Amino acid sequence: MKTENIVACNYVESNGGSFKAINPSLNLPISTPFVAADNDIIDSALDKAAAAFKVFKSINKDQKSNFLRSIANELELVATALIDVAMQESGLTEVRLKGELARTTGQLRMFADLIEEGSWVDAVIMPAMPDRLPIPRADIRRMLRPLGPVVVFGASNFPLAFSVAGGDTAAAFAAGCPVIVKVHPAHPGTSAITATAIIKAVKNNHLPDGCFSMLYDGSYEVGTALVQHPHTKAVAFTGSLKGGMALHKLAQNRKDPIPVFAEMGSTNPIFVFPEAVINNAQSLSEKLAVSVTSGAGQFCTKPGLIFVMENINLDNFKNHLITAFQNSLPVTMLTPGICANYFEKNAKVLSENGVSALYASEIDKSALPNGGNPILAEVTAENWLKNPLLAEEVFGPFSLLIIIKSIDELNAIVEKLEGQLTTTVIAEAEDVAKYCAIIEDLTDKAGRLIFNGVPTGVEVNAAMNHGGPFPATNNNFTSVGSKSIYRFVRPIAYQDWPDHLLPMELKRENPYHITRQTNQTLSKD
Amino acid sequence: MKTENIVACNYVESNGGSFKAINPSLNLPISTPFVAADNDIIDSALDKAAAAFKVFKSINKDQKSNFLRSIANELELVATALIDVAMQESGLTEVRLKGELARTTGQLRMFADLIEEGSWVDAVIMPAMPDRLPIPRADIRRMLRPLGPVVVFGASNFPLAFSVAGGDTAAAFAAGCPVIVKVHPAHPGTSAITATAIIKAVKNNHLPDGCFSMLYDGSYEVGTALVQHPHTKAVAFTGSLKGGMALHKLAQNRKDPIPVFAEMGSTNPIFVFPEAVINNAQSLSEKLAVSVTSGAGQFCTKPGLIFVMENINLDNFKNHLITAFQNSLPVTMLTPGICANYFEKNAKVLSENGVSALYASEIDKSALPNGGNPILAEVTAENWLKNPLLAEEVFGPFSLLIIIKSIDELNAIVEKLEGQLTTTVIAEAEDVAKYCAIIEDLTDKAGRLIFNGVPTGVEVNAAMNHGGPFPATNNNFTSVGSKSIYRFVRPIAYQDWPDHLLPMELKRENPYHITRQTNQTLSKD
Repeated sequence: MKTENIVACNYVESNGGSFKAINPSLNLPISTPFVAADNDIIDSALDKAAAAFKVFKSINKDQKSNFLRSIANELELVATALIDVAMQESGLTEVRLKGELARTTGQLRMFADLIEEGSWVDAVIMPAMPDRLPIPRADIRRMLRPLGPVVVFGASNFPLAFSVAGGDTAAAFAAGCPVIVKVHPAHPGTSAITATAIIKAVKNNHLPDGCFSMLYDGSYEVGTALVQHPHTKAVAFTGSLKGGMALHKLAQNRKDPIPVFAEMGSTNPIFVFPEAVINNAQSLSEKLAVSVTSGAGQFCTKPGLIFVMENINLDNFKNHLITAFQNSLPVTMLTPGICANYFEKNAKVLSENGVSALYASEIDKSALPNGGNPILAEVTAENWLKNPLLAEEVFGPFSLLIIIKSIDELNAIVEKLEGQLTTTVIAEAEDVAKYCAIIEDLTDKAGRLIFNGVPTGVEVNAAMNHGGPFPATNNNFTSVGSKSIYRFVRPIAYQDWPDHLLPMELKRENPYHITRQTNQTLSKD
Repeated sequence: MKTENIVACNYVESNGGSFKAINPSLNLPISTPFVAADNDIIDSALDKAAAAFKVFKSINKDQKSNFLRSIANELELVATALIDVAMQESGLTEVRLKGELARTTGQLRMFADLIEEGSWVDAVIMPAMPDRLPIPRADIRRMLRPLGPVVVFGASNFPLAFSVAGGDTAAAFAAGCPVIVKVHPAHPGTSAITATAIIKAVKNNHLPDGCFSMLYDGSYEVGTALVQHPHTKAVAFTGSLKGGMALHKLAQNRKDPIPVFAEMGSTNPIFVFPEAVINNAQSLSEKLAVSVTSGAGQFCTKPGLIFVMENINLDNFKNHLITAFQNSLPVTMLTPGICANYFEKNAKVLSENGVSALYASEIDKSALPNGGNPILAEVTAENWLKNPLLAEEVFGPFSLLIIIKSIDELNAIVEKLEGQLTTTVIAEAEDVAKYCAIIEDLTDKAGRLIFNGVPTGVEVNAAMNHGGPFPATNNNFTSVGSKSIYRFVRPIAYQDWPDHLLPMELKRENPYHITRQTNQTLSKD
């Protein structure tokens, strides 16, 4: 495995400090050292990205979609090594990582399909009206075009699907933007193998080398410099509120502010209404426990707050929930740091006024040094409403059951809720009839609204929205699904521009045969 | 004329300080005093906007388009008084203000058409696939929905079209957002009359009063408080770089950052290539002089930099330009402050190394106390490249002709250019063939690219883009035309949501008969 930093698809030596990833299952460093990028490397990566952009922004759409498909194909060729290293670095299971690789290649091919079809550029053509009075109308043609070099931060919890060749990179490439990846220090080896697939795809498709660079760092300096670099035009990040907001501030304090698209997690509240509890206590409990604990609860969409209205079947529901949690085994968390944070945070919540544990499994630290134990805690709505700490995300297999005594409490909770990636309503028809106003109010609090389901298991398609009001995200875009491409483009209008200088998508003959709006009409003509 | 602040369509007394507008033609205060909003008024306006949003966000699309049309109709009913007061407050001519009113009502009706048609919400439906393996696919339906209360800052240079009922307000209402206008202190009377039209439209269409509030301030406190208010979800601003960035910083330093859509002007460079000069010196000069000086050059799209390649006809071109500028009469500028800034800024530029005046008209200050005199200055590209001050916007009837001696200089200029609302290429076929790489590089510098035209005269339609790379704007949206609605919405995905709880646009029967994407297909079925 080549461990050097990658500048414009070339491996380069660095003078930076070295670090090692940790195998969280063994709680031991992995022997391969990686070296942080130095300032020359950062400058060189961005300079070459800016130069590559001049070519990459205008390549033929089929060349771009072939590139995306090549990355997917090349990833499948290195799948065995990739999953082996990812298991060591993340503690995730082979089954999970195989699924995640399929999601990753699926995302790349989804964007390839989108680019190949071509209409995503939202072309609008208002032809000239030379005889219009009092003044003639110019010919104006508008489409979306790429921003320029994009910095992508690898995420700890999806070493494949939200990392080097993950959704952010795929969307940026699809838009026509060169990508500079800042590797997550928890999985540098996984990143190094993924990078080989991208480099091959760049070379096989004869694209400028500057389209792809990848830099390592065990600390924050490289990420900071990348966000501050004059050539960087946008940043994509998935991680903590603290991390996302630090990048947001850096980007807004530049001389020329740039967008940081930060997805910063969520408590994904579940609202369980009475009739649903009365009718489905057991099946509901099983679904919820799986959603909270699978993958050690390390998902942005893990339900961390379960609000339930008092009802005659509440004790039965709680017992079913406890049983379901008992059936969830502790598993290794992604990193020692994430595991330590989980223990600190859940202990803090459990020590707050009125909070009690309904279920907390034991961890055998000798067998699972970084194991996260499933915990279900309980509190009254009255106490929850008094304590903002209880509204914070606990990243891990933890959920807090909040018992609501009155509609007033329910209204106060909805009023107080911060922005969420998702909110979920568990209800029967009678519940919906009774609480429809509150259910409507919940729509202002989230980016995705789920009915009688669970928020984990995020579909990757054009209808998905993975983003929500602050603090779930700091922007009004999705970071999952094909619409996430719109983070990396801006409109350009061409006025009376000669046909041979227009982008293919706007030429008079519509050579790509894409759907365009001309005056008020959509057509492919 | 009622001069009180307006909270939720009601006039309220304030404890704030008072101020008067100034008639710039006379350089005298206008007798009517206005009173700044106090903190109670600000809180009340936002609280009522947040409450109104719960209703307004979901009103029937025809009710919303009727509302927009009503505002346009009501404005036409008060046109005489409106234009009379606007002339006094702005110094703009009756002809110009009549045109601006037509643009204002045209914008409102354009958005009414957009809302009535309905497909703008970008609905995507991915139906359930219960038999999909390994896991079933949920039904996911996504559309764009309004953000919540929007604060609109009135702009000095368009007292009608970018002010109380201007493009920002029309777009926000069209999106389904309540609006709180911060009046520009240069035209409070114009604003007061405009507000009567909106209030009538709110009442006649039985909308919640909280949809519209309008607050006065002669200083910055009210604007600051509005941007910082927890209920404010977005801000729209057209004005100076300094003003826009101050609001941007305020908004990004909130606990929950919100978007400020700031259009902050531009130098709108014109690149004149040799063959174009040789062939069209006179007609080109006349077009350019009108674009620089009409309306006293007080447009965001006024061309402030005219780059010309040395050529055999250059002296002739200069002479034609001077003649054309001589034919432009000085007119009154919008405010004494803007006029003073203009004199200060153009004097500064003219005193810089190597800058000389090709033409500077005299001003009779007794006849035109706030008159702005058309000025054409000249500098070599060599000196321009050394002096960043010469790349700054001079708001007023001023333009700087920059003489380019070599392709290296031309490349250096394009490289150095900051983001622009527009760039314009003046060229013949031979020029295009020779300079096509440089022309393509210009596309990265602007939001609108004009060929053999001028940047002033901004069409209001779906193809328009009025926004560009920083510092022209701080975002990747247009602030003119129907696409400007997308500033004020966010996507929401509904997963397995019951049909009767879905918004009309996403219901299974497609009751609005709008164009939606279902799987990969666009259709109205």
